Amino acid sequence: MRRHFKGDAGVAIQFADRMYSVKKSFIREILKVTEDSSTISFAGGLPNPKSFPVEEVAAAAAKVLKEDGESALQYSTTEGYPPLREYIAKRYARYGIKADAGEILITTGSQQGLDLIGKVFLNKGDTVAVERPTYLAALQSFGMYEPGFIGISLMDDGIDVEAMKKALADDAVKLLYMVPSFQNPTGITYSHEKRKQVAEALRETKTVLVEDNPYGDIRFMGEDLPPMKRYVGGDAIIMGTFSKTVSPGMRLGWLYAPGDIMEKLITAKQAADLHTSYFVQRVVYQYLLDNDVEKHIKRIRRMYKAQRDAMVSALERYFPDGVYYTRPEGGMFLWVTLPEGISSIKLFEIAIKNKVVFVPGHAFFVDGSGQNTLRLSYSNSNEEQIEEGIKRLAKAFYTLKEAKHETIAVKG
Amino acid sequence: MRRHFKGDAGVAIQFADRMYSVKKSFIREILKVTEDSSTISFAGGLPNPKSFPVEEVAAAAAKVLKEDGESALQYSTTEGYPPLREYIAKRYARYGIKADAGEILITTGSQQGLDLIGKVFLNKGDTVAVERPTYLAALQSFGMYEPGFIGISLMDDGIDVEAMKKALADDAVKLLYMVPSFQNPTGITYSHEKRKQVAEALRETKTVLVEDNPYGDIRFMGEDLPPMKRYVGGDAIIMGTFSKTVSPGMRLGWLYAPGDIMEKLITAKQAADLHTSYFVQRVVYQYLLDNDVEKHIKRIRRMYKAQRDAMVSALERYFPDGVYYTRPEGGMFLWVTLPEGISSIKLFEIAIKNKVVFVPGHAFFVDGSGQNTLRLSYSNSNEEQIEEGIKRLAKAFYTLKEAKHETIAVKG
Repeated sequence: MRRHFKGDAGVAIQFADRMYSVKKSFIREILKVTEDSSTISFAGGLPNPKSFPVEEVAAAAAKVLKEDGESALQYSTTEGYPPLREYIAKRYARYGIKADAGEILITTGSQQGLDLIGKVFLNKGDTVAVERPTYLAALQSFGMYEPGFIGISLMDDGIDVEAMKKALADDAVKLLYMVPSFQNPTGITYSHEKRKQVAEALRETKTVLVEDNPYGDIRFMGEDLPPMKRYVGGDAIIMGTFSKTVSPGMRLGWLYAPGDIMEKLITAKQAADLHTSYFVQRVVYQYLLDNDVEKHIKRIRRMYKAQRDAMVSALERYFPDGVYYTRPEGGMFLWVTLPEGISSIKLFEIAIKNKVVFVPGHAFFVDGSGQNTLRLSYSNSNEEQIEEGIKRLAKAFYTLKEAKHETIAVKG
Repeated sequence: MRRHFKGDAGVAIQFADRMYSVKKSFIREILKVTEDSSTISFAGGLPNPKSFPVEEVAAAAAKVLKEDGESALQYSTTEGYPPLREYIAKRYARYGIKADAGEILITTGSQQGLDLIGKVFLNKGDTVAVERPTYLAALQSFGMYEPGFIGISLMDDGIDVEAMKKALADDAVKLLYMVPSFQNPTGITYSHEKRKQVAEALRETKTVLVEDNPYGDIRFMGEDLPPMKRYVGGDAIIMGTFSKTVSPGMRLGWLYAPGDIMEKLITAKQAADLHTSYFVQRVVYQYLLDNDVEKHIKRIRRMYKAQRDAMVSALERYFPDGVYYTRPEGGMFLWVTLPEGISSIKLFEIAIKNKVVFVPGHAFFVDGSGQNTLRLSYSNSNEEQIEEGIKRLAKAFYTLKEAKHETIAVKG
């Protein structure tokens, strides 16, 4: 007879401590309940599939397999396909950054970059500073290594530098994670002045900057600014991705880090998945080589600009004063702040009945605040859907507001 | 002025503790120094690229992109493409195992499976039992979660069950990791009787079995046996891969685990890379659907059988009595034990000058033993290369043996 039936009710399998503190992504759970096609979704951060270069990728795949098929299907190096690393390194030159191909590590999407950085830097109990609100999946990836988090408030032009200085005065803050351009979830972009101040403040610390830059190419208005790395210099790590400019389904991203950090990242990557799909690396590189990528990116910018304009315009028309929202200069997201005391979770419950969904904002805060905020994505809806979706959302908002007044009236 | 220049000599960046104990793969380092094409390599565990279905994969990629391109390039679910999971689950039926698609998680190569299992189960200081010798990359992946390792000796027909019982009597052994069919590095396969005994012994413990089965399909002689999972029942986790039967460069593998474990694995996978390349999943599934896969696998078996026979035959002809080697019934590896006191590292140094390389065996032992052992891979060399390579290796062996005698003579 078995002493234990592992997995049986009663005798639970003992998982690692980290598994009891990490939650599943709230966003992914939302996406599951909203697969109904009549619901308009501003929830997921999905690129517009109309932007995918399907035919060009097909041509690239055919060419790679015809010309070098056996090699493209074989194991490869952990670091990644050298010409692809070279391509990525060279592209930073447009910002006056001299990157070396040896400083680029190809990753399985930029999400893997977060995991590798966590693995390389974090002992249990170390501190990670993040923006407030911040990218949810960064909390999940880093969270697996059981650090503590400090949230630093975002202002209209980027992080609150005084609060940042205060937070980083503690030597124990190992990493500062930020998305300085078209931030997820807020759409906020750090100004040139703010970038300089952040770099200046970082110099006084031991903290390593992790700059997540998935949307940097998708600027459709305002002045283009270099990554924080240009301001900070050698120590920063940049995370990049082809998800927003070529295809997210490929899962192809990279880390750009100085040599001593890179060496550790490669060791961690080797243990994580040996290397990123070599077939994918070869196909995407062939695509980049054979096509006018800058032209393609311009097309995506125009597409998202139109969608962003449609959303801002609809918000202006359908929502009353007292509801605030960001006006992003790029990227895929817009952030709404409802009047104090109006819960975006309650709004969600009504909105889903009205067949429109979004992500309630509290999920993006390490301290559970932001109850009256929400994230809207305009990237995966056309202008008609955006118009209709914001109309439905406004209707839900008024329903909630009136119900609230009634409650108050009854209470009074 | 900067208080610290992070990364400067003198003020080292503080990495996580785990990064100071994990070494880079010795095998990968060997592969780097042996890129000279006149050197015959028995070192890497590379499949024979002649076995890759290049044209069929090209047809599958073209079809997927033509028929469903926008979807194939979009983000997808963490669990993986449902029809692919269904296909994998159903294929276990040939061993009398009823797997449900919900128990299959698609991974970025089976290497990622190791990382996810480590993440889900291991706290620092937990114990993992492994075969002695064992698969090197498992030590690396699990090692990232800072467990202790116990090595359990392998016999000709599988693990030493008495030693295993003794090791697992300690309640703290969380995982038992094994490769029961055509093991890497030894080529050893557990007998039916041994599998039964292992299952029986496991029942008395809390330890979860991790069965790595990358070579199970590549049996070219002897009686086909079901995976350990069939003997153990619900609690075992199986790791599988398309690397040996379709293409390793795709990085496509899976975990097969019961529901309560699967739930944690999905959470860990989500944090690790969101999901495995959806494009790769779609292409490989299309390939599996449109081709006679069993016929393709039979072709690989014939290919490796011929290569294995060539190596065994050459070893018989060129090496003297007192050198022992396994005679694998499948897989890609063969294990050589030299006479006591003859170092495979010294042999390596001579062999590389003779333009033949292999992996010295001590790397596969958690306790640094196995100094007189080595691993030979026959999968990525043709019969002529194998004949010539073993001849060169034997020459190196005799050179070493004579040098040793001379040293003894001089000493004497």
